[in-house]
Amino acid sequence: MTLTANEQMWSELGIDLESHGQLMNALGPIYGEIYLSQKNRPQGMGFYDFVVGDIHGIRVKELREHAKDGGKVVATYCVFVPEEFCWAAGAIPVSLCAGTQFSVPVAEEVLPRNTCALIKSSYGFKLGRLCPYVQVSHLIVGETTCDGKKKMFELLAEQQPVYVMEVPNKRSTAGRALWQQEVRDFKAKIEELTGNEITVENLGEAIKKVNARRREFRRLSALRAADPAPISGKDALLATQVSMYDDVERQTQMITALNDELEERVKKGEGVAPKGAKRILISGSPMAIPNWKLHHIVESSGAIIVGEESCTGSRFYNELIPEGIGNLEDMLTALADRYLKTNCACFTPNTERLDDIIKMARDLKADGIIHYNLQFCHTYANEAVQVDRALAEAGIPLLRVETDYSDEDAGQLKTRIDAFLEML
Amino acid sequence: MTLTANEQMWSELGIDLESHGQLMNALGPIYGEIYLSQKNRPQGMGFYDFVVGDIHGIRVKELREHAKDGGKVVATYCVFVPEEFCWAAGAIPVSLCAGTQFSVPVAEEVLPRNTCALIKSSYGFKLGRLCPYVQVSHLIVGETTCDGKKKMFELLAEQQPVYVMEVPNKRSTAGRALWQQEVRDFKAKIEELTGNEITVENLGEAIKKVNARRREFRRLSALRAADPAPISGKDALLATQVSMYDDVERQTQMITALNDELEERVKKGEGVAPKGAKRILISGSPMAIPNWKLHHIVESSGAIIVGEESCTGSRFYNELIPEGIGNLEDMLTALADRYLKTNCACFTPNTERLDDIIKMARDLKADGIIHYNLQFCHTYANEAVQVDRALAEAGIPLLRVETDYSDEDAGQLKTRIDAFLEML
Repeated sequence: MTLTANEQMWSELGIDLESHGQLMNALGPIYGEIYLSQKNRPQGMGFYDFVVGDIHGIRVKELREHAKDGGKVVATYCVFVPEEFCWAAGAIPVSLCAGTQFSVPVAEEVLPRNTCALIKSSYGFKLGRLCPYVQVSHLIVGETTCDGKKKMFELLAEQQPVYVMEVPNKRSTAGRALWQQEVRDFKAKIEELTGNEITVENLGEAIKKVNARRREFRRLSALRAADPAPISGKDALLATQVSMYDDVERQTQMITALNDELEERVKKGEGVAPKGAKRILISGSPMAIPNWKLHHIVESSGAIIVGEESCTGSRFYNELIPEGIGNLEDMLTALADRYLKTNCACFTPNTERLDDIIKMARDLKADGIIHYNLQFCHTYANEAVQVDRALAEAGIPLLRVETDYSDEDAGQLKTRIDAFLEML
Repeated sequence: MTLTANEQMWSELGIDLESHGQLMNALGPIYGEIYLSQKNRPQGMGFYDFVVGDIHGIRVKELREHAKDGGKVVATYCVFVPEEFCWAAGAIPVSLCAGTQFSVPVAEEVLPRNTCALIKSSYGFKLGRLCPYVQVSHLIVGETTCDGKKKMFELLAEQQPVYVMEVPNKRSTAGRALWQQEVRDFKAKIEELTGNEITVENLGEAIKKVNARRREFRRLSALRAADPAPISGKDALLATQVSMYDDVERQTQMITALNDELEERVKKGEGVAPKGAKRILISGSPMAIPNWKLHHIVESSGAIIVGEESCTGSRFYNELIPEGIGNLEDMLTALADRYLKTNCACFTPNTERLDDIIKMARDLKADGIIHYNLQFCHTYANEAVQVDRALAEAGIPLLRVETDYSDEDAGQLKTRIDAFLEML
């Protein structure tokens, strides 16, 4: 059997070629159906089609080249992990949360079945040797944002070096102090891993780079407020998902070009759905690649998704880190404080998130909100009770959805979503 | 309709008399079947029969009397909350975790159904106005030991004043610093609530009192190492459960008397099960009153439960606080450090618990271990994977059980447990 260049690379990385081949073969048709079937897509999405078309190829090759030259690759699973330290120290961060049912069964051989699909899929990618990104990485960085992940990382540590950052549960004085220390400890860990010191200069550069990408995502978010919407929710979600593991500067460049194009569309009143199409804001659990399930159902029903209040949405890009601070201690403090503003359901209380949802719904002129909950995700499921009340008070219609990565409930979801859209 | 004195009291506390009456009427026959049917029980259990016979009566009356005189009652749900501060400041702590399916349906009208039964039952007790203890309390103290409880407390706070203590996720230097601060903040909160200052003197007294009860429970635990076992697992569990909401000195007295009696039994070689009966250690999630389900199944099958590695077991009494420290700061530090030694699955990593389980199994001469997991409790369910491996390595047989408060799986559980006992 002759291996392709990609297969040769995957084989060297310890990938299970047969199983991985099945995964890759399945992805093409799914992407074709969900993405390529869309009409009037922005040209700027061409890049993302290319990326997904070689999803475990070209980027992995870049990371290997980087590693061959002694560079480090840092795998992360959460927007709380400060990627700036990696860029500053010459390491490459790649976010690895996984979004496919394909890797769930192998995880269920070890993890409790009533664990959320994202955790199972992520763990299954490692256990099943299905993910070249985790294989090429030198350090996995976990965090304590939920019980399931917190304990899964202990099992992942049996497979590969894992470092866990503690995210506090309360935004108290003591909680902030703990987080400030955790951020400093993580900086030291990255310095140790790379052998490179993090300085005012290289950290300042990294902050600027990541801020630049955040600014473009904020601009993209603002452009989605137009009616007709210039880009589908699916496409905007994909750009966010890819940005989490791609080079930061390349992404800024790509999103800038995409935004320039969308700006033209908005000026001309052009869009991807007819003016007046029902506008939906999604709020809740993150959607890792290739989890496009909810977006696909909603937009196939004629509505348009105009925003994602989630870790694969606003929580990834909303807050900036102050630039131009001249000393390292103050930079670290400002950086840590920025991350602490991530309104994750791990915090108690987390009323700031309720404000975020309502503000986004108004800014983006959403007709309704779908609260997306990965099954067995306790924090978001509980917080949904409060989201429900806050939105009822604000007069914004809400549909609460709890699902996983399987397609078993697709029909039922579509029925519920159609009924919700009808009602708006 | 003429109300009994208890009903009059419950009514004044805002209890839903009709629903509560159903609960009380159900408890009697259950207790009769599970407890009173046991043979050769220690006489010292008579007190506990009396307590359960008037479970929402006499103790609630005491708490009300205390409150009438301006005293405060503090409701807690976890062994991390330092009860010493309450006793020191003249408040009475009562642990309120709930263990009945009866209060689950009302909770499920609000909480996600895939939440663990303990959390649903606790919340349902408040929502359904079924628990005079929570009604009589002036402050509910929650903690962040799991996602489900952490977020449930936010909803509970809509009903009654709630204060949440943050338990760190890691036992790092920063985690310890956070906990030290949390303990000091909680002390200030209790001082504010009671208007009483916590001093070297009254805290020293409180530490001694709680330590005394812990010492007697440790003695009880050691006595259970005898073969034949001098007391059933059910009875030992009940004593622990009652001690969590009863007066600390009365409990020390009762357990001391019980232990004296058990010591005599051990000397005489008397026990509650035949010498050589299969000896089981239970490890895992807590069992709140009246959750005697697993103990009843195991002991009805002829085995004897010799220990509970759980929050309603060893984690409640294992560690002592150093006595005789002469200044408040050092006392607070020692107290906080004692609580941080609670080997709860909320910590990552938590390998100390694996050591505890193996040590208990050996000390108590257990033939096998049943790992008890409340369904949807992510931390213990994940940790069970590691318990499984550690026990396989240690050569100790393990049965992993996941269940809730309903009786639906009782038959299936019995079959599995019988097969396990057969195998030992």
